[in-house]
Amino acid sequence: MSKPRQLKFGAMVHGVGHGWGEWRHPDAQADASTNFDWYKGQARLAEAAKFDFVFIADSLHIHEKSSPHYLNRFEPLTILSALAATTSKIGLVATVTVSYTEPFQVARQISSLDHISGGRAGWNVVTSWLSGTAENFSKSEHPPHAVRYRIAREHVSAVKGLWDSWEDDAFTHNKQTGEFFDRSKLHALNHAGDFFQVKGPLNIARSRQGQPVLFQAGTSEDGRNFAAEYSDAIFVHAESLEEAQAYYADLKRRAVGFGRNPDDLSILPGIRPIVGRNADEVEQRYQQAVQLVSIEDAIGALGRPFNDHDFSQYPLDAPFPDLGDLGANSQKGGSDRIKQQAREQNLTLRQVALDFSRPRREFVGTPEQVADQIQHWFEHGASDGFIINSLLPDGLKSFTELVIPVLQQRGLQRTDYSGSTLREHFGLAFPVNRHTAVRLSAATKVTDAEQSKVPA
Amino acid sequence: MSKPRQLKFGAMVHGVGHGWGEWRHPDAQADASTNFDWYKGQARLAEAAKFDFVFIADSLHIHEKSSPHYLNRFEPLTILSALAATTSKIGLVATVTVSYTEPFQVARQISSLDHISGGRAGWNVVTSWLSGTAENFSKSEHPPHAVRYRIAREHVSAVKGLWDSWEDDAFTHNKQTGEFFDRSKLHALNHAGDFFQVKGPLNIARSRQGQPVLFQAGTSEDGRNFAAEYSDAIFVHAESLEEAQAYYADLKRRAVGFGRNPDDLSILPGIRPIVGRNADEVEQRYQQAVQLVSIEDAIGALGRPFNDHDFSQYPLDAPFPDLGDLGANSQKGGSDRIKQQAREQNLTLRQVALDFSRPRREFVGTPEQVADQIQHWFEHGASDGFIINSLLPDGLKSFTELVIPVLQQRGLQRTDYSGSTLREHFGLAFPVNRHTAVRLSAATKVTDAEQSKVPA
Ligand SMILES: Cc1cc2nc3c(=O)[nH]c(=O)nc-3n(C[C@H](O)[C@H](O)[C@H](O)COP(=O)(O)O)c2cc1C
Ligand SMILES: Cc1cc2nc3c(=O)[nH]c(=O)nc-3n(C[C@H](O)[C@H](O)[C@H](O)COP(=O)(O)O)c2cc1C
Repeated sequence: MSKPRQLKFGAMVHGVGHGWGEWRHPDAQADASTNFDWYKGQARLAEAAKFDFVFIADSLHIHEKSSPHYLNRFEPLTILSALAATTSKIGLVATVTVSYTEPFQVARQISSLDHISGGRAGWNVVTSWLSGTAENFSKSEHPPHAVRYRIAREHVSAVKGLWDSWEDDAFTHNKQTGEFFDRSKLHALNHAGDFFQVKGPLNIARSRQGQPVLFQAGTSEDGRNFAAEYSDAIFVHAESLEEAQAYYADLKRRAVGFGRNPDDLSILPGIRPIVGRNADEVEQRYQQAVQLVSIEDAIGALGRPFNDHDFSQYPLDAPFPDLGDLGANSQKGGSDRIKQQAREQNLTLRQVALDFSRPRREFVGTPEQVADQIQHWFEHGASDGFIINSLLPDGLKSFTELVIPVLQQRGLQRTDYSGSTLREHFGLAFPVNRHTAVRLSAATKVTDAEQSKVPA
Repeated sequence: MSKPRQLKFGAMVHGVGHGWGEWRHPDAQADASTNFDWYKGQARLAEAAKFDFVFIADSLHIHEKSSPHYLNRFEPLTILSALAATTSKIGLVATVTVSYTEPFQVARQISSLDHISGGRAGWNVVTSWLSGTAENFSKSEHPPHAVRYRIAREHVSAVKGLWDSWEDDAFTHNKQTGEFFDRSKLHALNHAGDFFQVKGPLNIARSRQGQPVLFQAGTSEDGRNFAAEYSDAIFVHAESLEEAQAYYADLKRRAVGFGRNPDDLSILPGIRPIVGRNADEVEQRYQQAVQLVSIEDAIGALGRPFNDHDFSQYPLDAPFPDLGDLGANSQKGGSDRIKQQAREQNLTLRQVALDFSRPRREFVGTPEQVADQIQHWFEHGASDGFIINSLLPDGLKSFTELVIPVLQQRGLQRTDYSGSTLREHFGLAFPVNRHTAVRLSAATKVTDAEQSKVPA
């Protein structure tokens, strides 16, 4: 590949934001989370800036102390299908859990989105980290962390198998003979595993990009291995350049260990840029965002990676409590890190909570400053691009209108789409259907055999 | 209500049609089933004609002998979400099974569609009639017919309960106080039944129409009772005016038995009109449709209500085979009828199969003739409207452009939408949230108690 390396960008489109009081900003639309016009507008901003994809996060369990973001929002596959109809090039990535779904349904709905959008679908594979989810899905218990990743492996394998049910040219549509499809190009999966039994075939053809693109966001040991083996892209939360670099090197190394080309695995940290036209505006915007984080909200948000643990029971200004194993069966990667940091830096609960919820200082600045930082991470082994988890009310607008042009001038971001599928945006090869591959390799063997008859 | 009674119309939007060779028509798009532009165009035709809704049928199991219609098609909730973005008034009805889904997921996705579309969603509740479906969903057996309807009752109750998780005015969004919602207006469901355990609450608000509209299509004894108790509309296959009248009277009577206003239950036979500008064109179009039904396709299609039974094993011109119980655990209503007809009229397998797949003579004619027949059924206790299961390539186009204007002139079909939700199109009252109802009735009781203090 002689093309210069370019950034990959995703827009995490959401309504009222993650875990703090963004919705209280005077200009914020408090009903944004179920407002289709808002989502449409955000997706169009991202497409105008030639982003690779929009990304919809998800979760399945709420209670009366859940933060606003989780309480009331669109389901990812339905909202992305609607956005497919109002956009034309940008990728559409849906977060869907493996712990409370059947592979047939997931394969089918994501493939349907892929067909509707002309090959722009992606699947962010998650395992669900809140044990209360089980009670919404007629299950007696939430599977333990390690089991969830075993489920993930099997689920994803079955889904990928179903996506190969039909070879790309299976539908012949011959009006003369009446042959609708070539029976030799339809394949039942017959998957029989520990968690799922899926006969197949899937009742939808392969899409234009062959198979949807896979995302993952696990940071634990199991999560990293899963991501390195299966994902095309990883959504990661990185606290600092050094942490991102370490994570980047680790994941690329693991990918190589699974026999993959490390360039085929994109590492995409999630960031929340705050952009102003000058230093004063930057500081004013930053302070406004900080002020919207109340300590009550921060305490609530902190519970999330710990299976929605209620931190309001502890004194705010005493050292961060000893939680024992708590969190290990939830967001293991994230909760381990919080505990470790609190211990190493001797932080109080208040400090940990505010630090967790307040906007960071990274990626805060003028357009040039933010572009510099992005370029620095990109060129120093910390990322292949970024997922913009924008602040309300106009975080995505100011980022796409102010920072993206700077990156485009520097040749780091495309000025137009060259492909039309998500896979093409990512520069990934078209995945050959497994059954077609067998057919081709059999044909090659015949050729080899015939050639071997030819005297050397 | 002083408004004159008007027809209700649904467009069953599909790609290559049900069970015969429509896709071989010279003008048919053979890839229509996964062609978003085709679906968009069909939905727009229906909206231009002021139809109440588009309807997407569904099934979940295929094999190499399945008919073209089933092999490769969009999943209903995703395609309808995309259509929500390209239409503005028409209702959007998704077929979703209760036998292979969890209430939380169904409630959430349909509600999400309802929010995306501004209150236009409907759910056609089906139980899945092909036993092979179990093998795609990690289940050891397909539940028996009667159990499927018990599952349906419990599933629908749980879904309706989840849809009432949030009272209509629960979200206060008070930026001053920081109150995002009123905690007294959020309700967990705590459903614990024979088939499902669902704690709730649902993570999406009530939509503009309160709850999505419910459809059903069962014709067996169990199916009828289920429909009469729960549905707002019934999709029925009727062979003749007399059969439709009997069904109509029966279902309305059952609805009354469940304490309902029979006007709140719409009976909508599915029909396949063939319209021509004059007698010659009608006959030519009819014959063309007949010729596209090959005996092989008809034999394949006939298997469908009998759990995809393979009829090619029997002699074509011998009397229709004795099938014993076959079909009773599949589409019981439909398969019983076929058996009975064959027996009563002494039909051969060929006759039964062709009769099953060939277009009927009803609703075939010039625009006035088709309008007359529709009016006759409507005014003689056979239907409250119709679901147009149109023939390729231009069945919906010719019906909406030729027949609808005649019905509009007669005052039987709206010339514009007066409401904007599906519930409003149907003239149904807004469903009061169950928890709000309790609150209101408690308030009334207080008033009563206070009034009783007043001397008479
Ligand atoms: C940046 C990031 C974003 C995530 N987004 C989601 C999400 O939208 N939905 C979800 O269920 N889990 C999400 N997760 C959780 C992980 O996907 C995973 O299910 C959970 O953290 C347990 O994995 P781990 O212990 O390997 O980190 C996210 C995690 C990270 C680090
Ligand atoms: C007109 C009509 C349309 C139907 N459409 C569907 C459908 O799209 N998907 C489905 O799974 N079942 C469909 N069914 C089947 C029924 O919903 C039901 O699941 C099955 O027939 C068993 O019920 P019964 O024995 O009461 O008729 C349809 C039935 C009728 C009569």
